[in-house]
Amino acid sequence: MTLDEIDTPAILIDTTIAEANLARAQDYADANGMTLRPHIKTHKLPMWAKRQLALGAVGITCQKVGEAEVMADAGIADIFIPYNILGAPKLKRLAALHRRIELSVAADSEITVEGYAAHFADPAHPLKILVEIDTGAGRCGVVTPDELVALARSIETAPGLIFEGVMTYPPRGKTAEVNAALGDAVAALTAAGLPPRRVSNGGSPDYYHAADVTNATEHRPGTYIYSDRMQVALGHGTLEDCALTVLATVVSHPVPGRIVLDTGSKALAADLAPVPGHGHLVEYPDAIVTSLSEEHAVVNVSACSAVPEIGQRVRVIPNHVCVVSNLFDAVHLVSGDHVEAVPVAARGRLG
Amino acid sequence: MTLDEIDTPAILIDTTIAEANLARAQDYADANGMTLRPHIKTHKLPMWAKRQLALGAVGITCQKVGEAEVMADAGIADIFIPYNILGAPKLKRLAALHRRIELSVAADSEITVEGYAAHFADPAHPLKILVEIDTGAGRCGVVTPDELVALARSIETAPGLIFEGVMTYPPRGKTAEVNAALGDAVAALTAAGLPPRRVSNGGSPDYYHAADVTNATEHRPGTYIYSDRMQVALGHGTLEDCALTVLATVVSHPVPGRIVLDTGSKALAADLAPVPGHGHLVEYPDAIVTSLSEEHAVVNVSACSAVPEIGQRVRVIPNHVCVVSNLFDAVHLVSGDHVEAVPVAARGRLG
Repeated sequence: MTLDEIDTPAILIDTTIAEANLARAQDYADANGMTLRPHIKTHKLPMWAKRQLALGAVGITCQKVGEAEVMADAGIADIFIPYNILGAPKLKRLAALHRRIELSVAADSEITVEGYAAHFADPAHPLKILVEIDTGAGRCGVVTPDELVALARSIETAPGLIFEGVMTYPPRGKTAEVNAALGDAVAALTAAGLPPRRVSNGGSPDYYHAADVTNATEHRPGTYIYSDRMQVALGHGTLEDCALTVLATVVSHPVPGRIVLDTGSKALAADLAPVPGHGHLVEYPDAIVTSLSEEHAVVNVSACSAVPEIGQRVRVIPNHVCVVSNLFDAVHLVSGDHVEAVPVAARGRLG
Repeated sequence: MTLDEIDTPAILIDTTIAEANLARAQDYADANGMTLRPHIKTHKLPMWAKRQLALGAVGITCQKVGEAEVMADAGIADIFIPYNILGAPKLKRLAALHRRIELSVAADSEITVEGYAAHFADPAHPLKILVEIDTGAGRCGVVTPDELVALARSIETAPGLIFEGVMTYPPRGKTAEVNAALGDAVAALTAAGLPPRRVSNGGSPDYYHAADVTNATEHRPGTYIYSDRMQVALGHGTLEDCALTVLATVVSHPVPGRIVLDTGSKALAADLAPVPGHGHLVEYPDAIVTSLSEEHAVVNVSACSAVPEIGQRVRVIPNHVCVVSNLFDAVHLVSGDHVEAVPVAARGRLG
């Protein structure tokens, strides 16, 4: 297959850029003695998960049981699901996963721990639980050392569970605060006789400051493999580091200054970035994607020195790449003249 | 299957509400002598398309060739694609569709018409083309009567094409202006000896004012079947008319006033509505979905008199239903105690 044979809209992955992003992150980890456990939510592809492991990652991170099932089926042997997994259907699937791979999960409540305890009862093969702590993001996670210690103790009390450590999804730009909060957590647990084996930190935006989070023992960046407009706007790399683009066709040019692409919110997603517009046109950097409807992107090309013709194709860097790869059944890996379509194996695994 | 057996996140469709929405729209059309050609982009399900036809629709509307292929495979015989279809791969697929169903498409440029003319050359079985006109939405569409007439003439000049009429995607809340613009278009075409056979108008938000658009001969509402928070905020019905909800589980309750659901932007989509928040909790109407990350919805329940427990399930009415049904591989039809899973056959048909 050649690039010209790909119909639009389609996802293109520049494998040279993606490989460079992976290598840079692993090099940073190696140089700083850090352990990587990349999050596969961004790419949802077993081939990239395997590549991340080959470069030195200790395991991978999946956000949902369904993603982990796909990765386990592909031969990935060590998976962390940093999520409160609740309800008998998912806990039964989790037990099946636990029988075949090295598995760890998260909890931030007694109810979640009780669910795990009810489905994992074998002291010879306990399920590893990390307690989620809130270090400022205001999403999930216990908020006091006392809660943390109490939950760790509940886990240790359950015969089929083992307290593995703590995890957090950090707020952006607060590396020092996150490190301090993790330090407090470790101190409280150690004082209680429950020193954590793992302290897991996440997030691509602050990944290149993660060496300052000295209290973490592993890091879970995801978006870094492809990057996107949001990452660039947050100061993480440049637009040249964006490996994923959406190939689009100009379908209309109704008036001077306005063109319309065949990539709407069902291709680019409506996620906003801290910069104006719904995507960056690689070949027309002065264009602004002013609005998306479901199958149309309206683009203001008034500031562009040249304007693409109807039928011409352009590449769009999306605002938030993780939700875009979840919209397409396949991506196209592009390496020079070589193009290969690969199904997004873990797409839509919401449960 | 019962409701309790459905794991989350999952889409539930209340078929009683959906049927009432379909019937109400058809009744309005019948009472006003209007012709309905519903847009299937919202549901993407052959069963609903067939139901819409059984109630009286003259055909259906699909936004992409891929959606039309799925509907044609399911036996739908009359499909309008109100889109500029460009490039040999799609035009070849369009030609294959044209051989087996009654097909019409749109164009707003000479380049689009040239593409159709190059792939459709049989005067005995011409392709029907509607010229798209901009009636104020500022998306696609020719903007002057002269352009409209010139494009209609180009279509008529091509042996394998036939000028069928005009179409528009109307701006919201501008029924009188849309009707006037359509009237001007009809007048210009008639004066040029090219009276349109069809004048096609679209959109759910103003559908219950569509009888005032007397110059239109057909209407293409889509969202009306399920409705959503955006439609309600625009004054189209009430929350009780929303047939689609996303079943979610409370996965965390880290502090008083904040719960977290397992429905993030990969389940609810990041589309905004003209009301605060990312969804409406049916059972907790005072809750506000303050933020979405990919697999978490953070909900402020401070104003709620009762708060759901961790593990409890709630139903969320999304902001924009059309992008939500595109995120799930299946929906669950709920009718009293009866629940049936149905694949979203035309999901992800972006091309």
